Amino acid sequence: MFRLTLVAGAAAIAAFAFAVPGYAADAKQMEENKKTVRALYEAALNKKDFAEASKYLGSKYTQHNPVAADGPEGLKGFIEFLKAKFPNNKSEIKRIFADGDYVIVHVHAVREPGTRGNAIIDIFRLENGKVVEHWDVVQPIPEKAANTNGMF
Amino acid sequence: MFRLTLVAGAAAIAAFAFAVPGYAADAKQMEENKKTVRALYEAALNKKDFAEASKYLGSKYTQHNPVAADGPEGLKGFIEFLKAKFPNNKSEIKRIFADGDYVIVHVHAVREPGTRGNAIIDIFRLENGKVVEHWDVVQPIPEKAANTNGMF
Repeated sequence: MFRLTLVAGAAAIAAFAFAVPGYAADAKQMEENKKTVRALYEAALNKKDFAEASKYLGSKYTQHNPVAADGPEGLKGFIEFLKAKFPNNKSEIKRIFADGDYVIVHVHAVREPGTRGNAIIDIFRLENGKVVEHWDVVQPIPEKAANTNGMF
Repeated sequence: MFRLTLVAGAAAIAAFAFAVPGYAADAKQMEENKKTVRALYEAALNKKDFAEASKYLGSKYTQHNPVAADGPEGLKGFIEFLKAKFPNNKSEIKRIFADGDYVIVHVHAVREPGTRGNAIIDIFRLENGKVVEHWDVVQPIPEKAANTNGMF
């Protein structure tokens, strides 16, 4: 009976592990991915330091933002543009999410201090802990709104 | 020894359950939340049926889209606007994510068939399986882009 109970116990553990395949590893990786995206955002948009930002990129960086060129070189060009035109740009992550290989950030970006700025949601895809693809949607925050809740 | 092994086995199961608190329930709820948001999106944006859409809302619906009024009544007004002005509006969910109480969708919305339409990312917050809060960012898809990857 002890042996039977042991076998049943082992089966229960196996069943639980099967029900949540790689969960502990996944959850840890998703937290790491959030940290990586935060670090990339800070380096690229606030410090405007491509050398630091590039540490968080994989061997490719597929760009879907229609005003940015593809690849790591496109990010480099965008950072140079920011440094030249909007050296005081400040991007603040308001909320961050992760699901599988993706990290999503909701951001308030102010290019010129004192202006309303843009609401942005970015989606990043990671492979092996490095950022390899980026989509975003950008909208200027309007002066007036039909509700009093704000865009964040 | 059998007894010791049994106790060790039970402890291992308990430790594993502690390491992933409520995971199975959370994962199931997140999948349910994705289904709820898909159903709300289909009812509101494609069927333009407020009666059906309202089944997926909680007792409140805090609206952060600056052109929509607050609350379920605001969604009703928006659906009436769509039916009157853009009866052929088609919104297609390209990708969907969930993290905790939040569901995020990346959407291609075309108000008039044959036009490029808008890229949209929405964030929904759910309570007890119902949608209670909404943020979004909307950007017209430009004619030309600096890369060939498309906005999706």
